[in-house]
Amino acid sequence: MLIKSEFDIQFHLPAETPVIALLHAHPSLDEQLRSSDVLKVEHILPAAERENPLQLAVEEYIDSFGNRCSRFVAPAGAIRLSGVHIISAPETPDPQGVGIGATPIQDVPAEALQYLLASRYCQVDQFGGIAQDLFGFYAPGWETAAAIRDWVHEKVAFNYMAARSTKTAMDVFTERIGVCRDFQHLAVTLTRCMNIPARYVTGYLGDIRVPAGGAGDFSAWYQVYLDGRWWDMDARHNEPRYGRILMAVGRDAADVAITTSFGVANLTHFFVESKEIDADGNPVPLPAKVPLAAFPEAEGEVQER
Amino acid sequence: MLIKSEFDIQFHLPAETPVIALLHAHPSLDEQLRSSDVLKVEHILPAAERENPLQLAVEEYIDSFGNRCSRFVAPAGAIRLSGVHIISAPETPDPQGVGIGATPIQDVPAEALQYLLASRYCQVDQFGGIAQDLFGFYAPGWETAAAIRDWVHEKVAFNYMAARSTKTAMDVFTERIGVCRDFQHLAVTLTRCMNIPARYVTGYLGDIRVPAGGAGDFSAWYQVYLDGRWWDMDARHNEPRYGRILMAVGRDAADVAITTSFGVANLTHFFVESKEIDADGNPVPLPAKVPLAAFPEAEGEVQER
Amino acid sequence: MLIKSEFDIQFHLPAETPVIALLHAHPSLDEQLRSSDVLKVEHILPAAERENPLQLAVEEYIDSFGNRCSRFVAPAGAIRLSGVHIISAPETPDPQGVGIGATPIQDVPAEALQYLLASRYCQVDQFGGIAQDLFGFYAPGWETAAAIRDWVHEKVAFNYMAARSTKTAMDVFTERIGVCRDFQHLAVTLTRCMNIPARYVTGYLGDIRVPAGGAGDFSAWYQVYLDGRWWDMDARHNEPRYGRILMAVGRDAADVAITTSFGVANLTHFFVESKEIDADGNPVPLPAKVPLAAFPEAEGEVQER
Amino acid sequence: MLIKSEFDIQFHLPAETPVIALLHAHPSLDEQLRSSDVLKVEHILPAAERENPLQLAVEEYIDSFGNRCSRFVAPAGAIRLSGVHIISAPETPDPQGVGIGATPIQDVPAEALQYLLASRYCQVDQFGGIAQDLFGFYAPGWETAAAIRDWVHEKVAFNYMAARSTKTAMDVFTERIGVCRDFQHLAVTLTRCMNIPARYVTGYLGDIRVPAGGAGDFSAWYQVYLDGRWWDMDARHNEPRYGRILMAVGRDAADVAITTSFGVANLTHFFVESKEIDADGNPVPLPAKVPLAAFPEAEGEVQER
Repeated sequence: MLIKSEFDIQFHLPAETPVIALLHAHPSLDEQLRSSDVLKVEHILPAAERENPLQLAVEEYIDSFGNRCSRFVAPAGAIRLSGVHIISAPETPDPQGVGIGATPIQDVPAEALQYLLASRYCQVDQFGGIAQDLFGFYAPGWETAAAIRDWVHEKVAFNYMAARSTKTAMDVFTERIGVCRDFQHLAVTLTRCMNIPARYVTGYLGDIRVPAGGAGDFSAWYQVYLDGRWWDMDARHNEPRYGRILMAVGRDAADVAITTSFGVANLTHFFVESKEIDADGNPVPLPAKVPLAAFPEAEGEVQER
Repeated sequence: MLIKSEFDIQFHLPAETPVIALLHAHPSLDEQLRSSDVLKVEHILPAAERENPLQLAVEEYIDSFGNRCSRFVAPAGAIRLSGVHIISAPETPDPQGVGIGATPIQDVPAEALQYLLASRYCQVDQFGGIAQDLFGFYAPGWETAAAIRDWVHEKVAFNYMAARSTKTAMDVFTERIGVCRDFQHLAVTLTRCMNIPARYVTGYLGDIRVPAGGAGDFSAWYQVYLDGRWWDMDARHNEPRYGRILMAVGRDAADVAITTSFGVANLTHFFVESKEIDADGNPVPLPAKVPLAAFPEAEGEVQER
Repeated sequence: MLIKSEFDIQFHLPAETPVIALLHAHPSLDEQLRSSDVLKVEHILPAAERENPLQLAVEEYIDSFGNRCSRFVAPAGAIRLSGVHIISAPETPDPQGVGIGATPIQDVPAEALQYLLASRYCQVDQFGGIAQDLFGFYAPGWETAAAIRDWVHEKVAFNYMAARSTKTAMDVFTERIGVCRDFQHLAVTLTRCMNIPARYVTGYLGDIRVPAGGAGDFSAWYQVYLDGRWWDMDARHNEPRYGRILMAVGRDAADVAITTSFGVANLTHFFVESKEIDADGNPVPLPAKVPLAAFPEAEGEVQER
Repeated sequence: MLIKSEFDIQFHLPAETPVIALLHAHPSLDEQLRSSDVLKVEHILPAAERENPLQLAVEEYIDSFGNRCSRFVAPAGAIRLSGVHIISAPETPDPQGVGIGATPIQDVPAEALQYLLASRYCQVDQFGGIAQDLFGFYAPGWETAAAIRDWVHEKVAFNYMAARSTKTAMDVFTERIGVCRDFQHLAVTLTRCMNIPARYVTGYLGDIRVPAGGAGDFSAWYQVYLDGRWWDMDARHNEPRYGRILMAVGRDAADVAITTSFGVANLTHFFVESKEIDADGNPVPLPAKVPLAAFPEAEGEVQER
């Protein structure tokens, strides 16, 4: 299928600010690209001059994880980052490796070994006993990885209000509430503890062949290394999905922030969309919508046991 | 002046649930009470029977901190906690102890010594070096206590979205954002590190002789022990206020939750108000309102250095 | 049986220092005392004057937990705290409440309710989900409490090198290694999460009717509230013992430090002993000794998964 | 000068265990090597067969940080890792960049950008405010970096007993005690917060042109990126040293463990030495020894404020 993904993100910067962005399709998708994949960075001028936004010079580089990164220095004022690309994606949902056994450490390729280690939000060194308690009795390999994903999905509640940038896997394990990245951090950490390489990824996960699910956003999921390849896993949604478009991989969210600005950057506009299109470029209709459940608000000083 | 304080809090309980409430004026205010001070707990029946809510039996006791507590077992369904009282409060704002020296530990009364120790949200054992670095060069006593209060007020930003029940003084110190309780926890911790007893308190802090400031809520502040008495301090507002009505004191928020329910309790209604009244019971008008500043939203995966 | 307990602890203080000590038998043991129970605090003078150590004035008080506390101001120099008492203890080991059901919250006496709350080293607010996962399927009451005690005993390894004053129940849960206090903090926290009041206690636990086990020390264990009384539990030793002599109870170790000195205090001598004596005051011989297992050292930068 | 460095580390493994080792000189030193640099891994057989230890196959690879790594699968039993090399090092102590200004983010090479991010033991996301408070008024660049190094050196006490594998920069900041790696983690974190890339490194730091300082060990220090190059810094020793031999660089200790074994590995022997030799291979004598200060022991339950 063809998937068209686009974004338009705008900031207001009080001062000149260096910025790093990870907003391209991942280089591993190069052969599937059916369009260009350019990051446009513009300085939006005041109304009188608005017809001619100033396009900024962007330097591109590949980081140590193999991601295509962009860097630029934005002037003070309004700045827009935008892009669009079309990718040819498989007609099938996320592959499942049911029954695959563990890969012995000695067979893990050198470049995947780092995904066994502790990282900022994934305290592998603190979860050893916990992981053994919970998952030590599953068959090594896919069964263990899937049990971890299912457990996190079941135990953690989704709540947009529960996001914070310092939240670690341990915080998720104790608070049992979080957003996308939090589900994946906990699952990644537990998976590494069981000696299965696991990496955190970001990308597009649009409403594709599923009912419309609200405003678009970038998404986070994770991948586990088994039997010579990386498998997509998603402890938040926990169901095979169509049309994941990989943007960046890393140890955890610290490695793959969509944008890192070295100074104050106030977000003023945020639009992300990823959808299936037909050969003529028209959107493919979605199945009927299912109502979303409401989530309770946090309750401040009112304490509940 | 006379201050009338009232609340109406409602929960929906899926099952029978024991509840502890700290919703009375503090016993130290008994002589200032100009009305009764009853906690009414009602089981709200379905519409057909609504005219006769069932009043629940409430047991009262004094806890080890000297607070008047209430406990009851609420049946499944809708429950309302309400109360109102009138208190005669001083005509003056919070007293200031400028110039007061430190109280030597040996002169601190036995019952105040516990407010030098570490508690759940106040990790005195982790802040020793930090407190010395920041406040070791102030004159002991009031000057040190006030410097801590000012520092916390200046460094921490208020944001309702940044509340969470597990947030400790250390979290506040690193995240620099929080609600009422967070400001006070950090200030309490640093104050204890400087060997000044400090306790966390809850109560009413209505818009009294200040411009109207939005919907009412319970408030948290703290008290420091110097020169033979407790002094009110407030690292969030950081200005002398009129009409603080003390409800409960403790080591930190863990000791003085407004309600603690031993089971699921979904908050469905929350009304709190505390205001000055005249001798006829009519509200005293407030000074003109000053617009509140807007606070930025959290920005998810968009990272800022 | 009769138990004679004594201690001799010495510090060197660089400067005059206020000190709080919890070194008496607990007031609940008053009727079992068969001797005086005096805390002697002496200023040890230089050699020439050594025959006349200066005895310091000590003030005694009962804290909010009901413990008998002592406070004094020690001059710079060498200081000795010592005491000895004889107590008539039961002929039986720790009572077991096998089969006792849970006490409903509404039947827990007011003064025990605080032992359900979070405290410095017992983050009840972080362990809710964890406790339910691990112990939610046990019968409420004794069976749950005992399951927690057994689990902590099995999962945590004892190691004197792993002590640190900031170590919380969460640290113990993740590191799985610790000393006496660490075992009890984790067990206390999990027990409170299951709505059973649990308090941390310190006291003497000598080698009484068990083989000699090395140098004496004070000990920490905990108590759970069930069926109208407190029961001794010990997640470290996890076997019924004879001759526990209670000294102090509190929420956790922050409340019941043997000594709290408000200034530098370098420990120079430490002797603690608690043993059974006969009617003539002679020690009762112990059963034959069992060799102690060796514990591995920590291994620095050498990392093990 | 010529520096000869060698090690002999032995483990006992209860079971076959995959191991990763970072025990080579760093590839950036290749031109300075004056000998081979081989990691020998042997299976030590029981006494009868001891003359013929079995040499194990070792696979070498370069990780994403540019380090030369080794991996092998060790059989159960005794295993020895050993190596020796001679390196030609500068005749001068660590270069100092006094007066060098900050490198704007846009001039930091892409491969150094990752050393601005948060990592497992370096919670850059938690230290932003703290770093600004402490170092915001220093001149950007070398002066800021040196102020951080000096501050950490002054505030943190060295104590071998205070090591633990989960200790983060935040723990060091609050506990103010630690080993080599702890000093560097705190300094690295604060340096990154000030927008100066900083990386954690391991290597040899023998007693070279300084008095003998006790048994040898591997050492950790860090490097900051300024003016187009990396500069060695050492918050523990905090004086320019001769003869640092770089082995591995990474974000923090999680990336550069000397050995990572995927299973139990009990350390049984540990010898590391790095010393200056003359052209004939003879050790160069050291200056006279200065006595080491004694460090106090931790004091268990005895609490000091």
